Amino acid sequence: MSQGVKMRVKIGVELEYRLAQPGPVLLMLEAAGAGGQDLRSTAIDFGRVEHLARVPGEEGIGERIILRAADHIRCRYDAEVAISRGCPDLAGLAADQVDEMPGDALRYLLSSRYCQAERFVSFATQRFGDLEGGAKVQAIRDWVEQRLDYVPGVSTASTTAADTFLERRGVCRDYAHLMIALCRAAQIPARIASVYAPPVEPPDFHAVVEVYLQGGWHLVDPTGMARADQMALIAVGRDATDVAFMTTMTAAEMVSQEVRVTAG
Amino acid sequence: MSQGVKMRVKIGVELEYRLAQPGPVLLMLEAAGAGGQDLRSTAIDFGRVEHLARVPGEEGIGERIILRAADHIRCRYDAEVAISRGCPDLAGLAADQVDEMPGDALRYLLSSRYCQAERFVSFATQRFGDLEGGAKVQAIRDWVEQRLDYVPGVSTASTTAADTFLERRGVCRDYAHLMIALCRAAQIPARIASVYAPPVEPPDFHAVVEVYLQGGWHLVDPTGMARADQMALIAVGRDATDVAFMTTMTAAEMVSQEVRVTAG
Amino acid sequence: MSQGVKMRVKIGVELEYRLAQPGPVLLMLEAAGAGGQDLRSTAIDFGRVEHLARVPGEEGIGERIILRAADHIRCRYDAEVAISRGCPDLAGLAADQVDEMPGDALRYLLSSRYCQAERFVSFATQRFGDLEGGAKVQAIRDWVEQRLDYVPGVSTASTTAADTFLERRGVCRDYAHLMIALCRAAQIPARIASVYAPPVEPPDFHAVVEVYLQGGWHLVDPTGMARADQMALIAVGRDATDVAFMTTMTAAEMVSQEVRVTAG
Amino acid sequence: MSQGVKMRVKIGVELEYRLAQPGPVLLMLEAAGAGGQDLRSTAIDFGRVEHLARVPGEEGIGERIILRAADHIRCRYDAEVAISRGCPDLAGLAADQVDEMPGDALRYLLSSRYCQAERFVSFATQRFGDLEGGAKVQAIRDWVEQRLDYVPGVSTASTTAADTFLERRGVCRDYAHLMIALCRAAQIPARIASVYAPPVEPPDFHAVVEVYLQGGWHLVDPTGMARADQMALIAVGRDATDVAFMTTMTAAEMVSQEVRVTAG
Repeated sequence: MSQGVKMRVKIGVELEYRLAQPGPVLLMLEAAGAGGQDLRSTAIDFGRVEHLARVPGEEGIGERIILRAADHIRCRYDAEVAISRGCPDLAGLAADQVDEMPGDALRYLLSSRYCQAERFVSFATQRFGDLEGGAKVQAIRDWVEQRLDYVPGVSTASTTAADTFLERRGVCRDYAHLMIALCRAAQIPARIASVYAPPVEPPDFHAVVEVYLQGGWHLVDPTGMARADQMALIAVGRDATDVAFMTTMTAAEMVSQEVRVTAG
Repeated sequence: MSQGVKMRVKIGVELEYRLAQPGPVLLMLEAAGAGGQDLRSTAIDFGRVEHLARVPGEEGIGERIILRAADHIRCRYDAEVAISRGCPDLAGLAADQVDEMPGDALRYLLSSRYCQAERFVSFATQRFGDLEGGAKVQAIRDWVEQRLDYVPGVSTASTTAADTFLERRGVCRDYAHLMIALCRAAQIPARIASVYAPPVEPPDFHAVVEVYLQGGWHLVDPTGMARADQMALIAVGRDATDVAFMTTMTAAEMVSQEVRVTAG
Repeated sequence: MSQGVKMRVKIGVELEYRLAQPGPVLLMLEAAGAGGQDLRSTAIDFGRVEHLARVPGEEGIGERIILRAADHIRCRYDAEVAISRGCPDLAGLAADQVDEMPGDALRYLLSSRYCQAERFVSFATQRFGDLEGGAKVQAIRDWVEQRLDYVPGVSTASTTAADTFLERRGVCRDYAHLMIALCRAAQIPARIASVYAPPVEPPDFHAVVEVYLQGGWHLVDPTGMARADQMALIAVGRDATDVAFMTTMTAAEMVSQEVRVTAG
Repeated sequence: MSQGVKMRVKIGVELEYRLAQPGPVLLMLEAAGAGGQDLRSTAIDFGRVEHLARVPGEEGIGERIILRAADHIRCRYDAEVAISRGCPDLAGLAADQVDEMPGDALRYLLSSRYCQAERFVSFATQRFGDLEGGAKVQAIRDWVEQRLDYVPGVSTASTTAADTFLERRGVCRDYAHLMIALCRAAQIPARIASVYAPPVEPPDFHAVVEVYLQGGWHLVDPTGMARADQMALIAVGRDATDVAFMTTMTAAEMVSQEVRVTAG
């Protein structure tokens, strides 16, 4: 393995969906060419589509693909990504002053659909008010992992951080939303990141958190499944809306979907 | 009046807030140097503050000011803006294909906290499905104006487009959120814009809608109070979260607030 | 068929559920001995249970069965019910004055979990304000049937009348909640009723509405599937919470469930 | 003071409201003739009204008054109540088996609009799962009092127990709803009670909780302001909807309201 490469991640995705009616489909599933990772190979094939376009993802990370399709979309994606980022020791990182943050960090202090930060201020102060910076982030992460049960099928596309805080269970996206809401309530910018990570079992699109500490963004997984040096980053955003691997404007029915992620 | 200038807008804002505890305050209240308007004069004064910074607003429109203050913030802002943009004939504008939109438009098709577009798809199809492009936008705008009653004090910071759709009343921000949700549900990018506009009575920060038609953004007021050539644009964003004139991280109590907006 | 009997309804239910842990189970699935219907035969068998009790249903209509079970519940229920009630001509019935209603009607003017009547007042006035009494109820019923699409699987146990009003689709319970909320908003007492009705296809527990007009309660089906003279009433209540055929305190997994309802 | 009387409570209420349009008004503000308290004197005067009726409150406790008024309602109520009930030692009371409860208790295990018990099951099990019966109720009460801040003005008529659980603040009604939701989630019947209690400062209608333990209902105040032997009970119900001191069908504006409650 070349110097600085912590892990190679091999990704294979095959998916097929049937559309209720013709219309555009947004896809966001390719590993990004971004800080801390290099694309060693990448190939994506959609079969026959009427039209295909690409636009940059949020913060210029990754790309969103827009397909116009008649009634089906099929996609096969294969890539290999070399990860060189390390794992941050969160507890040792300092928080930035809000008035010294760049606009691209400041934006991630604001509430968003699934992460209504202002509703969490009282609780965050009660529970984590004595801690500072990275130590506070670490405590929030640990609290989320300990208090939630990982239960597929109980949360839906409308489940928010407030719901998860109450119901104490969910999947990776719910863990991420709750940690993000708590960090923002504590004045620490936090955003969602979609990644591929070999330890995630069964392999699937995985949602984690990026927090802004000491002038930079750091990947953290509140489910505890993966470390930052095991993650191939796809996209970032305010919450799940921005990083959905597929967004359709009309009803879409899954025909098949397979995701393979291995450490190479 | 120089050629092409439709209106001069004179703005005066004085506000004072008391903070429950020291902390950062985000302000977004200066008219932007943006398409269709020129700043003829601008002056802003905050008295004594601990620290002040500026970051660009969403889409690079306007600026967000970040203050660090001990217990009070005071702000006096005076400006004169020359508006040269015209009023679009919405009904004559065509909608763009989703797969031909730039990323900066595509983003405003997605749901956001106050504008949960996907929940409106059935209704938007039932009611406006026979129309296309700008004619559909015009029909949505008219429907919102006709169905809602302008009633101050009934909506709160948590009122969403879904709430307003049911309760049929609200203020400018609620009108804007409902129109945005309906446009997005109809695959037309829409975002919120905060403006100063002389016809708004009593003078105040005013929220309107920008829709993306025929390759550009067009200002529309679902309350019917102001025309595009009467608006001095401050900021744009996904919904009210992005364009709030003031965001504090802790409780803030208004001491005084005065907004004057006149056509000069 | 004896005089006055409009229809005989034969009911057969078999269900088996697995409980995640031992605990009480509430069941409400027997046709009630209530106005407008007579039980010709009834038999219910639970196999072996630890304990079984019965308490009256809301308003003294029907009975709630409470089982204590170790890990499984099995139930077989067979009955024959003779329906003698007629079908009201709603439009010809007068509304009662609120201050002349008995307490048992007044209660059903208040908002409940799934039927937040006060939020519907503006819309109900806008849309149905010109009508009175039974004619208003008929118009509300027709509006609900016309505006909603019957789509299984899109609503959940947390879907309210407000959600259904926006999303324009759902199942019988959602139709009932929306009609109830609108009637209450118009000062007409309305409650949910669970029934068996032969025309419902596929056969299942069915939720309809009872409205209070001209001194009495009248069954109406906003889905248009069944008439009042085809309904074997099980229970009534404020909304779905009160008439659920099964309520468990812990997770329960369906092993099998079959409902047969035929006109005899 | 006669034997067994713990406290005499003198109550004086004067209120005046202006109605936006003629319509019925429901009032529930007289101390009930109920277990543990005796009415020593009572007088109520409404001035001139078009019509007045009374119906029993929920569970036959207290009475609901229905007025038909043109544009104003005025009410003057004076009473003296002798309280003979004692203060339960909650921790020493046993919980009843669900399958041995009467229907009037069982009803208060179900979720209601402001107390969505089933959403609290995971948390209640995590936090209070090791406790039983009255000791569990006592721990829930203490947790609610300790975790919430009493802050007037932050909650509204739509604030639920789920909201309060997150936002950690509210008034008596919010404390009551949260305690009720947690008790029901732990299979202990709980309902709201409206009372007058001298220690409440400033004097006002006060909301507390009744829990069903060891075959009977017991008054508890999660705000810690009042003891059971200091409460003059007005009404009980599933949640705030059932015990509101005033319910109007159209907008009502307060002209004046004064509540005096003293220990005599």
